[in-house]
Amino acid sequence: MASVTINVQQDVMADRRRLAAELRDEFSGKGTLVVNIVSSPGAGKTSLLQAMARHWHGRFRIATLVGDIATERDAERLRPLMPAEQLTTGGACHLEIPLVRSGLDRLGNSPLDFLFIENIGNLVCPASWDLGEHLRVVLLSSTEGDDKPAKYPKMFRTSQVLVITKSDLLPYVPFSVASAIQDAHQIQPQLFSFVTSALRDEGINAWCGFLEDERKRMLESAVRTVNERGESP
Amino acid sequence: MASVTINVQQDVMADRRRLAAELRDEFSGKGTLVVNIVSSPGAGKTSLLQAMARHWHGRFRIATLVGDIATERDAERLRPLMPAEQLTTGGACHLEIPLVRSGLDRLGNSPLDFLFIENIGNLVCPASWDLGEHLRVVLLSSTEGDDKPAKYPKMFRTSQVLVITKSDLLPYVPFSVASAIQDAHQIQPQLFSFVTSALRDEGINAWCGFLEDERKRMLESAVRTVNERGESP
Repeated sequence: MASVTINVQQDVMADRRRLAAELRDEFSGKGTLVVNIVSSPGAGKTSLLQAMARHWHGRFRIATLVGDIATERDAERLRPLMPAEQLTTGGACHLEIPLVRSGLDRLGNSPLDFLFIENIGNLVCPASWDLGEHLRVVLLSSTEGDDKPAKYPKMFRTSQVLVITKSDLLPYVPFSVASAIQDAHQIQPQLFSFVTSALRDEGINAWCGFLEDERKRMLESAVRTVNERGESP
Repeated sequence: MASVTINVQQDVMADRRRLAAELRDEFSGKGTLVVNIVSSPGAGKTSLLQAMARHWHGRFRIATLVGDIATERDAERLRPLMPAEQLTTGGACHLEIPLVRSGLDRLGNSPLDFLFIENIGNLVCPASWDLGEHLRVVLLSSTEGDDKPAKYPKMFRTSQVLVITKSDLLPYVPFSVASAIQDAHQIQPQLFSFVTSALRDEGINAWCGFLEDERKRMLESAVRTVNERGESP
């Protein structure tokens, strides 16, 4: 019976990967950079998104799909700053594409420059699920300890960016930024890293600037692809 | 095919529950209180265990099984203070009984007053797995935010004790101890709660005293059970 379970699981995973690739293509075509934000509970995903919205102050069209097991609290925190739809899993430890799609339906069809997906607070399970993002960003708060990249390797291996959060607490905790980044690079040598404090608006310029550059790169690459096909951009 | 998967899953869960009940009975008979410690990554499980070992300073026979996805780092931190065996899941998001059993085999047969199981850092998945513990203790660090009980209800509903950690950081973070405890009590009204700082040895007396009382209660209840059967204690 075990082999039956594995086959069903493989079918589900293959189906999810196909749906993720479709979603990514769809958003590339629309010029929307999709960013999947993952972290432990309480690492500061919502606070970072608030700081980013304050930084951009309407210069970009942004929206967030907010994953949680229960409550609408995070979506409520974001709504004064941007459109936000809550995805409530009712117990599941990660988001999957069908729930993302249902959130997109509720969000409507307004054009977006950036779509953020705030995943369930969990440094393990969301690593295994492609949500159709262009970028996976793992947050690590200074209060969690600098040993987390080595202890939760898959999440860091499957991410393109590490954002260290709560840098305002660095004077009070035994956390070495250098050692966390070094450990993360051993797992994923191409990882970009930023050090931020949403509370004090530190490091937000660099992090938002990086996202703007990534979106520009995506738009240029879409134009190149169209030109190669001989069509007008 | 979906129904086949569900049946296999149900069989596995029933089997795990039986193994957990056996383990709990076995340790009750030996006078060992088994404590399953769960939390987000970096909430301070290992640091709390270090502070407890320093507090008891050899007055009780204690050991820890340390769960992690990768690395032996936490077991290495504990070994100067107590016997500790690492349980490495290689990717799984929670501990299960067979891995606990393999750790117990390595730990050997020395009598213990307390056995601690430090679960994988994950506020979701470990809630669903009984490891044969007498007490499940959920740690919540002051830096994670006081909204976690409402957002991760199952973990708080299935725990008997809430230990708030890193109280030394309370002056620097927006965390209300009263509101966290109140939210947790709405989910689990019988939850005991403690506020601790392992760094400053704050609240460790009360927390360790509670565990000593719980063990005494277990021993007395075992004596009562034996007397009721008409056997000598």
